[in-house]
Amino acid sequence: MITNSELKYIKKLGRKKYRNLHSHFIVEGEKVFKDFFESNIQIFKSYSTKKVKGQKNIIVTDNCMKKMTFLKNPSNVLGIFSTPKEKITPINKKVLVLDDVSDPGNLGSIIRLCDWFGFKNIICSKKTVDCYNPKVVQSSMGSLARVNVFYEDLKCYLSKVSIPVYGTFLQGESMNKVKFPNEFVLIFGNESNGISKSISKLVNRKITIPKKSKSLVDSLNITSATAIIMNEISTQLFKS
Amino acid sequence: MITNSELKYIKKLGRKKYRNLHSHFIVEGEKVFKDFFESNIQIFKSYSTKKVKGQKNIIVTDNCMKKMTFLKNPSNVLGIFSTPKEKITPINKKVLVLDDVSDPGNLGSIIRLCDWFGFKNIICSKKTVDCYNPKVVQSSMGSLARVNVFYEDLKCYLSKVSIPVYGTFLQGESMNKVKFPNEFVLIFGNESNGISKSISKLVNRKITIPKKSKSLVDSLNITSATAIIMNEISTQLFKS
Repeated sequence: MITNSELKYIKKLGRKKYRNLHSHFIVEGEKVFKDFFESNIQIFKSYSTKKVKGQKNIIVTDNCMKKMTFLKNPSNVLGIFSTPKEKITPINKKVLVLDDVSDPGNLGSIIRLCDWFGFKNIICSKKTVDCYNPKVVQSSMGSLARVNVFYEDLKCYLSKVSIPVYGTFLQGESMNKVKFPNEFVLIFGNESNGISKSISKLVNRKITIPKKSKSLVDSLNITSATAIIMNEISTQLFKS
Repeated sequence: MITNSELKYIKKLGRKKYRNLHSHFIVEGEKVFKDFFESNIQIFKSYSTKKVKGQKNIIVTDNCMKKMTFLKNPSNVLGIFSTPKEKITPINKKVLVLDDVSDPGNLGSIIRLCDWFGFKNIICSKKTVDCYNPKVVQSSMGSLARVNVFYEDLKCYLSKVSIPVYGTFLQGESMNKVKFPNEFVLIFGNESNGISKSISKLVNRKITIPKKSKSLVDSLNITSATAIIMNEISTQLFKS
């Protein structure tokens, strides 16, 4: 069983303010929990509806899990993990930069893509959704345990960078015509507004995904666009 | 102003049962509304918080729109459109097949991808989320006005098909090694369980996205996977 104050504490961690205050965040789902459990990230407490070998979870009823969960369909396990200590933000390394990405599902999927394509670091603008938001953790499917996410003033960050800076735009050079180097910065903008004006000025090359159909559609969802561009980069670097 | 019964009617259209009963669905957001408004899909009624040239919207207050909306942040316009009359399901044409895709955001993004890459038809299993669900309409960003979505018994549908059937799996032949013909069927499965066993048996070739990093991540989100595979197909067909 869990106490009322424990339940309250878990619910509070749905909000960024309390996650920052307590340096804790919630992980749910067997697969995602396992990825965090096996990572270097410290576990604080965990709850499950059944015993799991090798895990010291507090056993709770299904009904109790229903009260605790942030998911539509509660899983068998919920863990409270400690936010990893801040690392030094990497400069002049291959990074993905996100300028005010607001949807938790998108950030989660992008973290998963970074994990898949070997991008170890993501630099987010301060207004980008918090990576420890339960929905981000969930949609990253455990990849957040392996990819570093930093929050920076992007103008300040980019001013220190001396490697090529690519930005993704609706209008730009076709990504297929760009030869990506080993180290570069790749920027994606907000879902509705794209890369902000002040950040656009710091982009060296504007790139785009060429549309091969005659359809009236003018853009792709940010997750789709990230997937296509990262795959192109990965194919290029793998060939060379 | 709108009446209470109008408000109730709109809210009912959030549920598949009532959408089917009345053959109406909801469209929100200026861009998405414009795409539907300019398509062949018939409009039944529309509401907006300000006058728009060329549109016969009923003007409502912001507060009223807040009550009507299915969005977190209400837009300026909400339309009720008539579900298009059922067309004949295309057989032996290039189609995307979805086997029990459940997340509305994923289906919406996939419809947008189909629009971008020139896939005009999607065949969904009966259990796939309804394409007129407000969240699907929203995340398709107007592409639903241009892409046909059919709901079929997949086993029955695939038994009639005599063109190559590709299925996407975690284990399979690298998509880069497959030469895609002009007409084919491409199947994606459910977010958690992939393509069901009974449908797997009807697949001619199992394909996968090769992972080029050493990461522990074992799969991608279905939207990301669809984006990458469609881009590969489009690149191949464009070259040939």
